[in-house]
Amino acid sequence: MRFVDLIEKKRNGKELSKQEIDFWIKAYVAGKIPDYQVSALLMAIYFKGMSIKETANLTLAMVDSGQRLDLSQLAGIKVDKHSTGGVGDKVTLVLIPLIASLGIPVAKMSGRGLGHTGGTIDKLESIDGLQVELSIEQFIQQVQEIGLSVVGQSNDLAPADKLLYALRDVTATVESIPLIASSIMSKKIAAGSDAILLDVTVGSGAFMKDLTNARTLAEMMVQLGRNVGRKTIAVLTDMNEPLGLAIGNRLEVLEAVDVLKNKGDVGLTEFILDLAELMIQLAGEEVSRALLRDNLANGQAYQKLVDLVTRQGGSEASLIRPAKIHQTIEIKAKSEGFITKLDALELGKAAMLLGAGRKTKDDLIDYEVGIVLAKKVGDFVKIDDVLLTLYVNQDTAAEVYQLINQAITIGKIQKQAQSIIEVIGL
Amino acid sequence: MRFVDLIEKKRNGKELSKQEIDFWIKAYVAGKIPDYQVSALLMAIYFKGMSIKETANLTLAMVDSGQRLDLSQLAGIKVDKHSTGGVGDKVTLVLIPLIASLGIPVAKMSGRGLGHTGGTIDKLESIDGLQVELSIEQFIQQVQEIGLSVVGQSNDLAPADKLLYALRDVTATVESIPLIASSIMSKKIAAGSDAILLDVTVGSGAFMKDLTNARTLAEMMVQLGRNVGRKTIAVLTDMNEPLGLAIGNRLEVLEAVDVLKNKGDVGLTEFILDLAELMIQLAGEEVSRALLRDNLANGQAYQKLVDLVTRQGGSEASLIRPAKIHQTIEIKAKSEGFITKLDALELGKAAMLLGAGRKTKDDLIDYEVGIVLAKKVGDFVKIDDVLLTLYVNQDTAAEVYQLINQAITIGKIQKQAQSIIEVIGL
Repeated sequence: MRFVDLIEKKRNGKELSKQEIDFWIKAYVAGKIPDYQVSALLMAIYFKGMSIKETANLTLAMVDSGQRLDLSQLAGIKVDKHSTGGVGDKVTLVLIPLIASLGIPVAKMSGRGLGHTGGTIDKLESIDGLQVELSIEQFIQQVQEIGLSVVGQSNDLAPADKLLYALRDVTATVESIPLIASSIMSKKIAAGSDAILLDVTVGSGAFMKDLTNARTLAEMMVQLGRNVGRKTIAVLTDMNEPLGLAIGNRLEVLEAVDVLKNKGDVGLTEFILDLAELMIQLAGEEVSRALLRDNLANGQAYQKLVDLVTRQGGSEASLIRPAKIHQTIEIKAKSEGFITKLDALELGKAAMLLGAGRKTKDDLIDYEVGIVLAKKVGDFVKIDDVLLTLYVNQDTAAEVYQLINQAITIGKIQKQAQSIIEVIGL
Repeated sequence: MRFVDLIEKKRNGKELSKQEIDFWIKAYVAGKIPDYQVSALLMAIYFKGMSIKETANLTLAMVDSGQRLDLSQLAGIKVDKHSTGGVGDKVTLVLIPLIASLGIPVAKMSGRGLGHTGGTIDKLESIDGLQVELSIEQFIQQVQEIGLSVVGQSNDLAPADKLLYALRDVTATVESIPLIASSIMSKKIAAGSDAILLDVTVGSGAFMKDLTNARTLAEMMVQLGRNVGRKTIAVLTDMNEPLGLAIGNRLEVLEAVDVLKNKGDVGLTEFILDLAELMIQLAGEEVSRALLRDNLANGQAYQKLVDLVTRQGGSEASLIRPAKIHQTIEIKAKSEGFITKLDALELGKAAMLLGAGRKTKDDLIDYEVGIVLAKKVGDFVKIDDVLLTLYVNQDTAAEVYQLINQAITIGKIQKQAQSIIEVIGL
């Protein structure tokens, strides 16, 4: 088999066979196919797509390139959760302890942020002392002992995906639905849980800008999960405005603590409760929303986060300490009316420029800085009401103000924000 | 400038600026852009194309990556000739001596064959002792002294094209009209002649299988040549059946000698006379077809080939010596009728399998072997008439017979072969 013939086949819009895809992934991981041939194939896939059959074969070939986590030592149906990324997305930090507080074990691997989007691992690292790199044995043992663990993605799972993603990132081949679907699902399948809840974000701050593409991606991932016997549900969620109020690693941890203490933003809290109900359903349990609310009100869900933080090397004090910043800058309304737009992409970029995110993978981030919204879409504001506060440690670039100015629109008609747009696979 | 942004721009169908194309070629030749990014861009160009402006800028950037030949020391208007390749194409071996026999100097660089197509340099190397690697000074001096020289493409001309072509070859990005046009024209422009005759082959044995694409390529190359002040004409020529009778290096040299001695295949001879008239016209001279025929009949054109061979290290004896083969195998007609198809691609592949061509660039070839046609399209054959003869040195694979079987069709209606289909740029 000559790899150039595979490139040509895909370039001509033909379907690659299982044998061809297996050959590609095995030989690539073994260093026997050069990057320059794989990047040409990736670009051909960008243009010609892949069938669900090809995507399933690619997904499994990537799973088989590494280790599969064996979670069978953990009791019950293990449910994983994945978000395709967004701005202010601290859902994992609330949802995992909340689920664990019900006695349902959660073993979760998370990623880092890039560009305007954040990552759970960066947020956890804003907790002094907390370790996100556990061995697989430590990871499973922790779930056995305290019911939950959140760690960085193991390099032993789907190493082919890691190689391919790095190549896609520098060759403008990230934005391909079958490549995105197989990348996400290979890691989720290798991570060993029995069921998967996928949060597919849609809108300006998301990877998928329009609903049609997001739906296609969600449907493809649900099918990929089910193909290998994993119960899989996807929710399409709005990412036109940031999730909750805080954007920035330390600030988001503090907001997650607020939600877990039942004093968080109502919209964010209800959204997480919606996701929690779906996760519980996937786990085959029956738990009322009232009980979920109880575990926020009675401190049990919060205690699970404290348990996780303490067990992974942090402390409750480091979990709840305020952000260390030099200055706060309030941005105020210049007109009266309803907030009609709080653009997640522009606010995410502004937070990145403050130092909260990485432009490129090798950039260092400042865990402390960010933005906290005082208002959300649908809120009424008067002139000089505070719209948001910048938490800064360096001189603030003019571009930040420009982005924030573009991000916010105040209008005459009240618009209702919507969290879950659609559930796929129920 | 980040190269990934250029890839994304082209992927999205936008036009690259002159600055962006210059950056690409300069940085790539300097080793500052990795192959895996360039191959992704090439695949994006395959799908999204390039405007004539982009193609002209790419062509000039590739010319500027190396040396430009200065042919000003040679008197008169220097005309170059290029074929996009085919099966049995020994035109250069006849045309160049014929033009030189009129006192018009010809300094020609040629290429090698790949796959089912042959290359002039391989054919010349079947002449024992002949050197095709001359320094640029020796090359020009030879033209000054004897009026003609044919050598291999200098590595100093358009080195960017050499790099890009090698990458395209292994990434299924060869078949892109703007990439083909810029590749050919960068070498022709760097080679320094004042006028260029392009033979764009069309049909099964050619690179371009259909007339529309061939015409687009021809028109683009004519415009690229004229953009930089070179008189340029393209002819679209039929490559559905092989050119002339012989396929294989030594066998084709012997056929070229036959034509130069005025005892060659009539169709091939007339085709070369057509091309010669166009070259002479590009050189600004007026020569009658009768005079051209005279120079074939009186031996002057042949003598020019002898001069070239002798000067470049060969001898007349080595020029005309028969092919050294172990066996000839005649293939005979199984039915009566007119030859309606002699497929150039299948015959070219059969000759390659006999050893006359390279499957990959590093394969060795057997200069002696090949195929000689006894009949051409339009000829009438009776049962057991010889259709062609195989000249072989090894056991002949079953695949060769299968290809030859597929290549030939005998039918009831006489079909006329056509050489020049169209002239573009006159």
